[in-house]
Amino acid sequence: MFKKTLLTLALASTATLAMAAEKADYIINNATVLTMNNEKTVYENGTVIVRDDKIIAVGDADLSAQYKAETVLDVDGDIVMPGLINTHTHASMTVFRSLGDDVPDRLHRYIFPLEAKLVARDMVRIGAQLGNVEMIKGGVTTYADMYYFEDEVAKTVDEIGMRAVLGQTVIQFPVADAKNAQAGIQYALNFIEEYKDHPRITPAFAPHGPYTNSTETLQQISKLSLEHDVPVLIHLAESDREIEVIAERSGGLSPVAYMADIGALNHKVVAAHAIEVSDEDIALLKKHDVGIAHNMSANIKSAKGVAPALKMFNEGLRIGLGTDGPMSGNTLSTIDEFNQVAKVHKLVNNDRAAMPPINVIEMATIGAARALHMEDSVGSLEVGKQADIIVIDVKAPNMVPVYNPYSALVYSAYAANVRHSMVAGQLLMKDREMLTVDEDAIRNELLEYTETVRKTVLESGEEIR
Amino acid sequence: MFKKTLLTLALASTATLAMAAEKADYIINNATVLTMNNEKTVYENGTVIVRDDKIIAVGDADLSAQYKAETVLDVDGDIVMPGLINTHTHASMTVFRSLGDDVPDRLHRYIFPLEAKLVARDMVRIGAQLGNVEMIKGGVTTYADMYYFEDEVAKTVDEIGMRAVLGQTVIQFPVADAKNAQAGIQYALNFIEEYKDHPRITPAFAPHGPYTNSTETLQQISKLSLEHDVPVLIHLAESDREIEVIAERSGGLSPVAYMADIGALNHKVVAAHAIEVSDEDIALLKKHDVGIAHNMSANIKSAKGVAPALKMFNEGLRIGLGTDGPMSGNTLSTIDEFNQVAKVHKLVNNDRAAMPPINVIEMATIGAARALHMEDSVGSLEVGKQADIIVIDVKAPNMVPVYNPYSALVYSAYAANVRHSMVAGQLLMKDREMLTVDEDAIRNELLEYTETVRKTVLESGEEIR
Repeated sequence: MFKKTLLTLALASTATLAMAAEKADYIINNATVLTMNNEKTVYENGTVIVRDDKIIAVGDADLSAQYKAETVLDVDGDIVMPGLINTHTHASMTVFRSLGDDVPDRLHRYIFPLEAKLVARDMVRIGAQLGNVEMIKGGVTTYADMYYFEDEVAKTVDEIGMRAVLGQTVIQFPVADAKNAQAGIQYALNFIEEYKDHPRITPAFAPHGPYTNSTETLQQISKLSLEHDVPVLIHLAESDREIEVIAERSGGLSPVAYMADIGALNHKVVAAHAIEVSDEDIALLKKHDVGIAHNMSANIKSAKGVAPALKMFNEGLRIGLGTDGPMSGNTLSTIDEFNQVAKVHKLVNNDRAAMPPINVIEMATIGAARALHMEDSVGSLEVGKQADIIVIDVKAPNMVPVYNPYSALVYSAYAANVRHSMVAGQLLMKDREMLTVDEDAIRNELLEYTETVRKTVLESGEEIR
Repeated sequence: MFKKTLLTLALASTATLAMAAEKADYIINNATVLTMNNEKTVYENGTVIVRDDKIIAVGDADLSAQYKAETVLDVDGDIVMPGLINTHTHASMTVFRSLGDDVPDRLHRYIFPLEAKLVARDMVRIGAQLGNVEMIKGGVTTYADMYYFEDEVAKTVDEIGMRAVLGQTVIQFPVADAKNAQAGIQYALNFIEEYKDHPRITPAFAPHGPYTNSTETLQQISKLSLEHDVPVLIHLAESDREIEVIAERSGGLSPVAYMADIGALNHKVVAAHAIEVSDEDIALLKKHDVGIAHNMSANIKSAKGVAPALKMFNEGLRIGLGTDGPMSGNTLSTIDEFNQVAKVHKLVNNDRAAMPPINVIEMATIGAARALHMEDSVGSLEVGKQADIIVIDVKAPNMVPVYNPYSALVYSAYAANVRHSMVAGQLLMKDREMLTVDEDAIRNELLEYTETVRKTVLESGEEIR
């Protein structure tokens, strides 16, 4: 009996230990963890536990002891935070990056002629592949894309292991993958059907803008998006030309008011730019639960102006950071936006306390998730959410010291300070090495493709400038 | 005879070859060379030859064959350009970086109390050491510094092998290294005497500003600077407070007009900021051949405004980029300024063609050299100039592709894209490894020092924020 009791106790003890050491895939510890949850909890010596594609625990150092994982990532004091979410880009346009940047009429001299001649499946794939690598190396784990042949972009996102909302363009002009808006809608519907069940890819409609589509097309897309429960990505309130066309079409309405008026604003819409918006427009965007992509760097480069992002953020709109495409931004990590977002809003509001770093990081993470209506699955480090996690090196000299991690990220970090990137529990980059794709092959294929771009520019009578 | 003739010919041939293969220390080849000379010559497959501390040849690929060097740096298509020149910083303040960034009255709540308690030889050395590493890793080969105990900064610059203009602060209040302005001037004179013959260090006076020094002190420094042929680094036309104080003192003059009026503007002066300058002020700055340090990132962060750098550049003033100190900027490579300088000037001038990348790169290199009155020795890759050279990685995904190297640098590059940095013919960083100092030891010493900073902040009743 005595022996048996002892044995029972021993077994019980082992069972308790076994129960305590719950199985996990990753223990990420020795970290400054920025959760970006509602309370903005920071664990100064924190731990994140990942199993399968999810976060199963977040907390202090003592959490580690409760789990047993295949891989322990001791990050030696680095910042661990939610993967960044780029709410607006055109990743494939990396093939054109640094071309004609400062030409005033570049849209008609460079972008449209090049796209007319070159947009094709290979170009879309080649450009997106490089954009994906750039984003993962810059800490972007989810992005929203608007372009042509989005099924090609989807294949690259699937392969690398990222998360994306991919919007198939609908536009009234003939383009490479559709001869008119109806053909574009059909292309989008086929794409949506193909990817509707993908765990990391959300197919979407991307009507280019209100001024480049008819009222009927915009209404049709709105209806279809609700039926299929997919997002609508659109450029909105971006340019003077758009304001003019829409005012003429609608008898004086602003683009936002027009979209509301025709019944095309709702909780599926993600509006890129929202530069030229009045207080009434902002109220409409809020009322209709529209997501906003704020692309500071591209907007000031084109001298289009500064979106009232501070007001939209403060009034509780769904707003997140975006980079715009690489002919606009020019880079694809929203880390490159941080500094400019914080500082230009201080400048235009004449207030050094405006747009503090913690708000910028919110717009880069959970705010961006809200803008894409994905806040239930990504954007913060919380139990049950997808394990989209990045690790930022705090030993690079520009990041030393860190009294305030939000300040260090916003005012000091470069995209190259990202050390590891994980999406859905899979490490895609470790110590700056890409793990799921061949970075050299992707770069070389793009560089080879630039010969075609150069030839096309020269044949059109323009210079490489 | 026949044999002898052959032998003679063979000898002659060897002699010719030997003469052709001139001795050098470095051949840097397979490069896109941006010379930043007057013609802005670019060698697409270029070569730079270095011997001792100087550039002895710059040209196309075939130049390589004419030299025989200890080290051939085949940079595989990377960009080779003049080392960047940071025209204004306070490198030692890295010890305070990311502290109280967005506090409206931070100068009085954080900076002054911390400096009053902590500025000392060790603090100055520890902060400058990290700043130096950050700058070399970010491609800055020369910087202009204003702080206390500049002889400590000088020791760190000497050790790491950089080039610097080091300005010893003169200010009317008691500070750590001088009880009043006279003591500051004496400290500066001793420092100037000690370093006047250093090959890479230019000692200078640094009167803090016109409003923090008396007219007599400013005049005395001006006279001494001409006598000793040393620069005068000064904050000028930076803040509303300065404008008020100087207007009151001078019967309504602007800071620039006041400096001219008292005879303190001349070709030895480097004015940091020049934000609040009228057209008349700009004309005075030009007339007196004053150098201008343009610190975009710091100026917009503090919501002080945007200096009319576009006008100053276009009117041919000596103007270069600076970062300001790490409590202001917050980083120390002017690469971090490029994007903001190009884009914010487009924004405020409402013109996407304003401030094109080539002008930004000019202000980062030869323009900055002109601002420091050093254009005869640094700022461009030309024969006879100092071999201050950096190599920028064009294979990092953010830098792919390069249709226009100036655009790629300005709109896409991070400080971390710098691969190698050379000063005076000595490689200080190779493949991102520091060669002349121990980066880990420098970082660890600074991190240890932050405990003192934290303690001091908390004891003063403020938070770490």
